[in-house]
Amino acid sequence: MAVELATREITDQEVLSREQLRDRLLAVGAARYHHRHPFHLKMHQGELTRGQLQAWALNRFYYQASIPIKDALVLAKSDDPAFRRAWRKRILDHDGDQDGYGGVEKWIQLAEAAGLSREQVIPCTGILPGVRYAVDAYLSLVRDHSLLIAVASSLTELFSRDLISLRMDKMRQHYPFLTPGLAYFQGRLTQAPEDATFALDFVSTHAKTREQQEQVIHALEQKCAILWAQLDAIDYAYVAPGNIPPGCFVPHCD
Amino acid sequence: MAVELATREITDQEVLSREQLRDRLLAVGAARYHHRHPFHLKMHQGELTRGQLQAWALNRFYYQASIPIKDALVLAKSDDPAFRRAWRKRILDHDGDQDGYGGVEKWIQLAEAAGLSREQVIPCTGILPGVRYAVDAYLSLVRDHSLLIAVASSLTELFSRDLISLRMDKMRQHYPFLTPGLAYFQGRLTQAPEDATFALDFVSTHAKTREQQEQVIHALEQKCAILWAQLDAIDYAYVAPGNIPPGCFVPHCD
Repeated sequence: MAVELATREITDQEVLSREQLRDRLLAVGAARYHHRHPFHLKMHQGELTRGQLQAWALNRFYYQASIPIKDALVLAKSDDPAFRRAWRKRILDHDGDQDGYGGVEKWIQLAEAAGLSREQVIPCTGILPGVRYAVDAYLSLVRDHSLLIAVASSLTELFSRDLISLRMDKMRQHYPFLTPGLAYFQGRLTQAPEDATFALDFVSTHAKTREQQEQVIHALEQKCAILWAQLDAIDYAYVAPGNIPPGCFVPHCD
Repeated sequence: MAVELATREITDQEVLSREQLRDRLLAVGAARYHHRHPFHLKMHQGELTRGQLQAWALNRFYYQASIPIKDALVLAKSDDPAFRRAWRKRILDHDGDQDGYGGVEKWIQLAEAAGLSREQVIPCTGILPGVRYAVDAYLSLVRDHSLLIAVASSLTELFSRDLISLRMDKMRQHYPFLTPGLAYFQGRLTQAPEDATFALDFVSTHAKTREQQEQVIHALEQKCAILWAQLDAIDYAYVAPGNIPPGCFVPHCD
């Protein structure tokens, strides 16, 4: 009933207020963000093996390694030095100031804690095609659409702090061997909310028509689907039912 | 032992003969073509429900509908009218000469035989993101690489006749309600081998260095992965374990 009233109040023609837009975006996250994915639920319940966590860390590395490339594509869309200065922080966060620092490096350390070698992780050989296609779809989404849509696709960071906080607790509890590799998540606890605040303010300011606001919402739905599909591929290959595609990584530790 | 000998005979520097190249391509199919995918095995054993077949027909429609677009991208890469004339046949096969004919239309008829309406199928709403990303990866592979690689990626047609022939038998046996929708496969029984012969001759003639021959083999591996990943997504969502992603098609018939 509340939903019906809300639907009547907001016609297709009306521009949403900042609060209404934020509520719509939060609703997308509640329904579609990958905190609800069965693979994450199993992870948090302590049901995954070390080999399954290896497969997750290995495959998700392709996503992590693509984030600064995605952010460079975003930078390249803006003609505003102030925007570029602000967004540049993200590339710094992931690439660091020198070799051995930054989020990409910290993800390698997580994979090492799971039992993989750096040499296994960095070349991205053996990752699942389904993960590769999903990540490449993210790069295409950013490359081939407007700056507004590119920024909106980053809004999954609105939801990541809670998931990361829970994940760190559960990893320490169920998979203590991962504890030395949690620096990536520690960094994201502060980086992600800062980034999300900036991006939410940007889309709230620059989506001036209802059509643009709907584009923003749809971009967030698409990004949620991209994250979700990566876990679909990992869960299918390594957990349930466990059909590893030809040529992909095979865990050997259990 | 035979494999070791073969490996010694063919160094990285040597150009493969036409027969050696063909054998390498056939070996890729034997190991990686989707006739071996668990979803197809279950289909052929009569284990799928009508709803699962609907999900397959609906999702695979996005692939079918993308084939003539892929072939137009191939056409656009060639400066040879004779090549373009030959390849143009494929677009004709899929689009037909008029409304109501051609492979894309015949696939819609298959989906209708499974119990879907034309209006459900054509917009491609509700298809799995994982299927969409895989098909889009096929379009990117063709768009962003050489004509040689684009043609090589079609070589899965070397293997499709046997699979289609088996599938038609099994559909008539296990899912007789699909029988009115088998015209697509009937057409492909002759089209696919003709197309494969042309494409195999093309790559055998135009891959003149060992490096180009390896590109051809790798392109076929990539195409096999694209087909395989579509079935991964369908099997995971609708069969085992059956986790339909948010916003995707939900069968209602069983």
